[in-house]
Amino acid sequence: MRTLAVVGGGAIGLAVAWRAAESGWSVTVFDPTVASGASRVAGGMLAPLSEAWPHASRELAFGAASLRRWPEFAERLEAVTGVGVFVAEQTLSVALDGADAADLRVVADFLVEHGHQPTMLDRAGVRAHEPALARTVRAGLLSVTESAVDNRLLLDALHRACLDSGVAIHAETVDDIDALPFDQVVLAAGAASARLRPDLPVRPVKGEILRLRHRPGAVPVPKRVIRARVHGRAVYLVPRADGIVVGATQYEAGFDTTVTVGGVRDLIADAEAILPGIGEYELAEAAAGARPVTPDNLPLIGRLDNRVVAATGHGRNGILGIPLTVDATLGLLEGRPEADAEVADPRRFATVGSAQPLPDRGV
Amino acid sequence: MRTLAVVGGGAIGLAVAWRAAESGWSVTVFDPTVASGASRVAGGMLAPLSEAWPHASRELAFGAASLRRWPEFAERLEAVTGVGVFVAEQTLSVALDGADAADLRVVADFLVEHGHQPTMLDRAGVRAHEPALARTVRAGLLSVTESAVDNRLLLDALHRACLDSGVAIHAETVDDIDALPFDQVVLAAGAASARLRPDLPVRPVKGEILRLRHRPGAVPVPKRVIRARVHGRAVYLVPRADGIVVGATQYEAGFDTTVTVGGVRDLIADAEAILPGIGEYELAEAAAGARPVTPDNLPLIGRLDNRVVAATGHGRNGILGIPLTVDATLGLLEGRPEADAEVADPRRFATVGSAQPLPDRGV
Repeated sequence: MRTLAVVGGGAIGLAVAWRAAESGWSVTVFDPTVASGASRVAGGMLAPLSEAWPHASRELAFGAASLRRWPEFAERLEAVTGVGVFVAEQTLSVALDGADAADLRVVADFLVEHGHQPTMLDRAGVRAHEPALARTVRAGLLSVTESAVDNRLLLDALHRACLDSGVAIHAETVDDIDALPFDQVVLAAGAASARLRPDLPVRPVKGEILRLRHRPGAVPVPKRVIRARVHGRAVYLVPRADGIVVGATQYEAGFDTTVTVGGVRDLIADAEAILPGIGEYELAEAAAGARPVTPDNLPLIGRLDNRVVAATGHGRNGILGIPLTVDATLGLLEGRPEADAEVADPRRFATVGSAQPLPDRGV
Repeated sequence: MRTLAVVGGGAIGLAVAWRAAESGWSVTVFDPTVASGASRVAGGMLAPLSEAWPHASRELAFGAASLRRWPEFAERLEAVTGVGVFVAEQTLSVALDGADAADLRVVADFLVEHGHQPTMLDRAGVRAHEPALARTVRAGLLSVTESAVDNRLLLDALHRACLDSGVAIHAETVDDIDALPFDQVVLAAGAASARLRPDLPVRPVKGEILRLRHRPGAVPVPKRVIRARVHGRAVYLVPRADGIVVGATQYEAGFDTTVTVGGVRDLIADAEAILPGIGEYELAEAAAGARPVTPDNLPLIGRLDNRVVAATGHGRNGILGIPLTVDATLGLLEGRPEADAEVADPRRFATVGSAQPLPDRGV
């Protein structure tokens, strides 16, 4: 039986490990704190269309390809764990002023060019769909195919699926990939991947989120993912069974994952600008994660050498990217590449695979 | 050896238990979660002067009498535990506008009438004392005798002092005082006291606080307790060894101790209005407690019958009230009342000691 080490037990690593085990590999996951990290501090949006912007066609194509694979991936996970992970079926991006509304129109036109069918909503249309949103919301872009998942249900289900399919989980930090006695290695260590392979251009970008719990009498949880831009900052509200996840700040702060007063202040203010009633929600948790970001915002999925495959660098879209990343990584292990993931080949960066590691980036 | 049951293991209950044990009582504390509750969700200000207001002379007298006893109480606690609990020596109340400044002058005049010596500061004086405060602060009232303690250090030290002096701690809820087989009973169950003695006019008032941790590069922690009023809401910043406690919201919310989004929003906004740099602090914790409040904002310290003594109802000033409450309660147990605490006799309310308990207050 061929042996596979997966370095990193976040959502990507666990998903790869589970599917590889089901495909006949003998799999061991290495992570000092499995099912935690940036995957646990996520909204769970599957929204490549709402995130689209002209000229970013490759990101749109990669994200849309992964989104198409989500229903089958979720079905398979539910079949083995009994856990359904979807918490919303649609995404509504809203505009608070004329400039925002013009931006939504730009996104809509770009999406139509690429074969998607978004729906523009006027003020009344937005309120008909989500009555609790602020009266200042003047337009919306409805995307009926962009769903969302509960990232924590997902992580726990993947963890369970791994254990049930015979994956061994070692609570250890890997310091040297070369020392791992396995036939193949998948590097899925998120922002920490550059510690093991300094040639990978991935850096931590801190993101803070809030978890709000609905309280009796408070405005209802929106049915859809709500996205907006407030004072130039992106904010999203992602439904949960019992509340809302609000995200996300972004800072270049290294591996610092402390929650700041200013971050919480901004998230609350921006969320209230969209959904004024959330002051009555419980603030159940504030948390920060280190997202693995690349220079071009596409992940790093590809062979680094005959033994090591990278599956990292998903930035703010790691949950979205799971199904395509899993398919592509298994394909690389089996020698049948996935065309949809070729844009993510790490060798698009000149540094990758160079004999000499780059100087330490100080992360 | 005479036996004493103390119902409630918050700061008041533990302090009474410790001192009673040292005075020769055989003491048992009953509390399902000792050293928690409202005592743990506190700023630790000892500020009866800064809280003063004309016509509230009894509250001022009670608080000032307890404040005078704090140094000796803290010394005694440090002698047996090695723990020093003071975190600030002075309190500075600041004004953001002309109305606030006029209010500070009213308080100052009232304090002088009662024999205290507050110092009024102008804009430059405030900045000389606390340079990081907002430039909008235009006046201040400095109180050099009003210190502050770390309530959690205090609670843990009291807990330790109890154990070291032979106090037994039973993690049990008491449902019936009459069923406790002890010579004497002290009822120190905070807002829950009315469950056991419905004739006591004490109700829970929810208060939320934030714990902020200093991060490198952030503005320094103030040296003094800083108090202010922002948009009509009282806000205080209490120094800690590693940060600041910000308090406190107030709601009539029964025993609900969930932290609300709106409460956190207001606390951050008000604190930032006073100390603009705190956005860079870590938001380490947000918590809520149920303060035991009485109709006249004085505590309930006195005999309820031949066997039961009340020591509760301290509202937002429970930490301040500890030394006088301990002295008064031990005095009542020994038959030598403390004159300073007579204003807190529960029999000032007509309901107290009535043969028929009042109808349940629904708390």
